Amino acid sequence: MAQPAATVGPDSKSARTRKRILDAAAYILSRKGYAGTRLTEVADLADLQAPAIYYHFPSRDDLIEEVMWSGIADMRDHVAATLAALPEETSPIERIAIAAEAHLRHELQISDYTTAAIRNAAQVPAKIRTRQLDEEIAYGAIWKKLFEEAAETGSLPDHLDLSSARMLLLGALNWASEWWTPDVRPLDTVVQTAQSMIRRILGDEGVQEI
Amino acid sequence: MAQPAATVGPDSKSARTRKRILDAAAYILSRKGYAGTRLTEVADLADLQAPAIYYHFPSRDDLIEEVMWSGIADMRDHVAATLAALPEETSPIERIAIAAEAHLRHELQISDYTTAAIRNAAQVPAKIRTRQLDEEIAYGAIWKKLFEEAAETGSLPDHLDLSSARMLLLGALNWASEWWTPDVRPLDTVVQTAQSMIRRILGDEGVQEI
Repeated sequence: MAQPAATVGPDSKSARTRKRILDAAAYILSRKGYAGTRLTEVADLADLQAPAIYYHFPSRDDLIEEVMWSGIADMRDHVAATLAALPEETSPIERIAIAAEAHLRHELQISDYTTAAIRNAAQVPAKIRTRQLDEEIAYGAIWKKLFEEAAETGSLPDHLDLSSARMLLLGALNWASEWWTPDVRPLDTVVQTAQSMIRRILGDEGVQEI
Repeated sequence: MAQPAATVGPDSKSARTRKRILDAAAYILSRKGYAGTRLTEVADLADLQAPAIYYHFPSRDDLIEEVMWSGIADMRDHVAATLAALPEETSPIERIAIAAEAHLRHELQISDYTTAAIRNAAQVPAKIRTRQLDEEIAYGAIWKKLFEEAAETGSLPDHLDLSSARMLLLGALNWASEWWTPDVRPLDTVVQTAQSMIRRILGDEGVQEI
């Protein structure tokens, strides 16, 4: 017989505690760095005793690996689901504009995970980095495909180096977690500006309006 | 009587040792983070005994502050000098394209300083961060002025939010230090792609060719 959902499902007390530990670890890791992240501080923030963390994660490094990895995995799921829900006739350039919006909004919503992953990518041991790198490659493949589809339409400007353009664009989006705050300017403005830039770069400006 | 240049000038042995300590600290800080940076490791890399560092920097935090701050100060000097050397008739949008090239090439040349500053901005104590923030604001002011001058020409696309566009562009440039390596693609290709993107976004594409 299956267990009741409240005991083992995603909304169970255990799953919620696990999530609270991850959120706290992302917060501390993004601010203190890999070497400066202490489990006692994570436990304090998650309102737990430090040993309780070991019920959910075998070690400090396992917890940190999960933070570094799950932010990108969540992003990939979110962007892939957004693209899958689009009408088939959506143009490749419009798909890129919509993926950029999904990336920006999700990144700034889960910004502790994003900045923890960004700031610590080169600081964590290689063992922890492996799973994050695999996720980055899988997520990057979504964008690579989007750009290739846009190139196939023949509408891209001549001489545009697709892979450099893709990396520069992703950089513009990723970096937003380092400067954007709701009190500086509305997120909608940033999203619209990014989309307008994409349409101008890739040659669709004036053709599509959402 | 002035001291001979070789004793106190920028090429003196002392100045060269100081530079070697800073380079080593930038390297370690970008890879180990603020909490993980040990002076013994910096000294090893700079081929010195650890106490020799204290001849040049009063404390570990003074050394780290200098790394965090000097990368941005150097960048500001470099970009400001590049802009000052341009013929007066250079168009505002072309100035932005040229500033982007100067930023990218300098950033990737001093990449340990760049990535150390990027990755540790939120991890260092507020005291260390202050001077870096002041420099960031001063450097940002150069870009703000460039965009304002471009807007005054009336050639920018309608409805483009200048400050969001500026921050997204700077993000694209800054992020390059996280992904670019000479073996992936030539730096010239990245520079040309960034410049072509800028001209398309700001409306100068096809008008100016370098």
